[in-house]
Amino acid sequence: MRYDIAIIGTGPAGLEAAITAKIRNKSILLLGSRSLKKIRKAPKVMNYLGLPEITGEELAKSFISHIDKMGITITEERASLVYPMGDYFSIQTAENGTIYEANAVILATGMVQEKSLEGENDFLGRGVSYCATCDGGFFKGKRIAVIADSRDKEKEVDFLAELADDVMYFPQYGDELNVNAKVQVLREKPVAVKGGMKVSGLQTDKAEYDVDGVFILRDSIAPSKLVPGLEIRDNHVAVNHDMETNIPGCFAAGDIAGAPYQYIKAAGQGNIAALSAIRYLSHS
Amino acid sequence: MRYDIAIIGTGPAGLEAAITAKIRNKSILLLGSRSLKKIRKAPKVMNYLGLPEITGEELAKSFISHIDKMGITITEERASLVYPMGDYFSIQTAENGTIYEANAVILATGMVQEKSLEGENDFLGRGVSYCATCDGGFFKGKRIAVIADSRDKEKEVDFLAELADDVMYFPQYGDELNVNAKVQVLREKPVAVKGGMKVSGLQTDKAEYDVDGVFILRDSIAPSKLVPGLEIRDNHVAVNHDMETNIPGCFAAGDIAGAPYQYIKAAGQGNIAALSAIRYLSHS
Repeated sequence: MRYDIAIIGTGPAGLEAAITAKIRNKSILLLGSRSLKKIRKAPKVMNYLGLPEITGEELAKSFISHIDKMGITITEERASLVYPMGDYFSIQTAENGTIYEANAVILATGMVQEKSLEGENDFLGRGVSYCATCDGGFFKGKRIAVIADSRDKEKEVDFLAELADDVMYFPQYGDELNVNAKVQVLREKPVAVKGGMKVSGLQTDKAEYDVDGVFILRDSIAPSKLVPGLEIRDNHVAVNHDMETNIPGCFAAGDIAGAPYQYIKAAGQGNIAALSAIRYLSHS
Repeated sequence: MRYDIAIIGTGPAGLEAAITAKIRNKSILLLGSRSLKKIRKAPKVMNYLGLPEITGEELAKSFISHIDKMGITITEERASLVYPMGDYFSIQTAENGTIYEANAVILATGMVQEKSLEGENDFLGRGVSYCATCDGGFFKGKRIAVIADSRDKEKEVDFLAELADDVMYFPQYGDELNVNAKVQVLREKPVAVKGGMKVSGLQTDKAEYDVDGVFILRDSIAPSKLVPGLEIRDNHVAVNHDMETNIPGCFAAGDIAGAPYQYIKAAGQGNIAALSAIRYLSHS
């Protein structure tokens, strides 16, 4: 099945885009978390017009209740690659390597630093991967480094441990760990990916390790890595007034499209992006 | 007193701008109606994220309650002219000719057709006026035509009847009238303003009348008439991503800045405009 619109992200921009598209009877794939963790953490939101002095917890509840009332499903997977195929998009998720298809895409993943390890971009697809389930198979019997942002990546670390011979794990978070005993944990800060034609090592702030591959499991993937060919300007996805990116059929809304980083602004842009996507579908 | 920011209009864009500016401790003049007539008329709003399936009536109530909780005052006057004075703005209102001053202005008056009578723009200031209290005095003992959109302009018609010798009234609404007995009511459609150096007549779909002045009392004044020198593009105020217009210190948000005409989009832009105005104030 090919969806009309894939919406990536479940902040205010993604949720509003989903609601607007649903009202217009579009089939939507809404990828992201139902927990709205980031919104829930907000102590108090003062300027979401119509919901005065609301806590982040209550605001998140209002948002999810709106989504539920409209019968919208959130597919709790993380997009790892959005690939423009010409007249449609192919969307790979990190969780189980499923490939989804959609005629239009709205990027609403929030503000993601376009930070990279030195060498990371150069070795993408030549030993650097963002997706354990997609690329784990290539490293059977090999030695790999895995870098992750938060503990919800530990399932993927365990999955890789079943395939690779040696897994060095560099957790970039302070929590207690719960990974396969076989995994070697190193509390170091990765600095650079090394190699020639392919990856041959990972350098940290303390040492350099010989590895065949480096898995980098960030909470969010920088837009330029998520969508090959996407135009970035001042660290954000470049959009016009209609929230169109440089790729036909690909739209962006919310923090990913630039400051100010405000819920009501993000929701407003989600609305614009959805209406632009609908217009795009009717012309194509 | 000179305000930090004057906000013109009390739709979602203006109200959100007011809330955002108030949170940042800016002094604001919020000009518009408390009734939110247009929003109240909406039968049901489906896509204002966080307020599922809300009636226009309830939405308007939520908005006003937010404004009241923040201690924001709505000044129930209609701006008739916003004049850029270099480093501040002078704002004239139609109701009592008061002149307000503000360092920055946010235009949020909604979608207004840039429609004009033939000759209207040519005779502006030379017999054509949009403001009874401002210009009525110039027509003492003279003969004038008054054109109005709705019955709440009838007070201004009566005011003019006290000054001018002859008042021909062309109501452009169907309701029963309640105007001074001295006023001559003509149920005709004005077509063109006529004259040489100054106004000398008004042509309707039925006849031509000799007059010294023509008062045009529209519910909303087209942005190009409201703010001299404002750049209009495709019938909307031209803005950039930061909701800046071509006039430094003047911002626009909501329907006035272009489609889509949606509440959540308007609110989002009101937020951006307020934050841009605050940044402008800090630099000037």
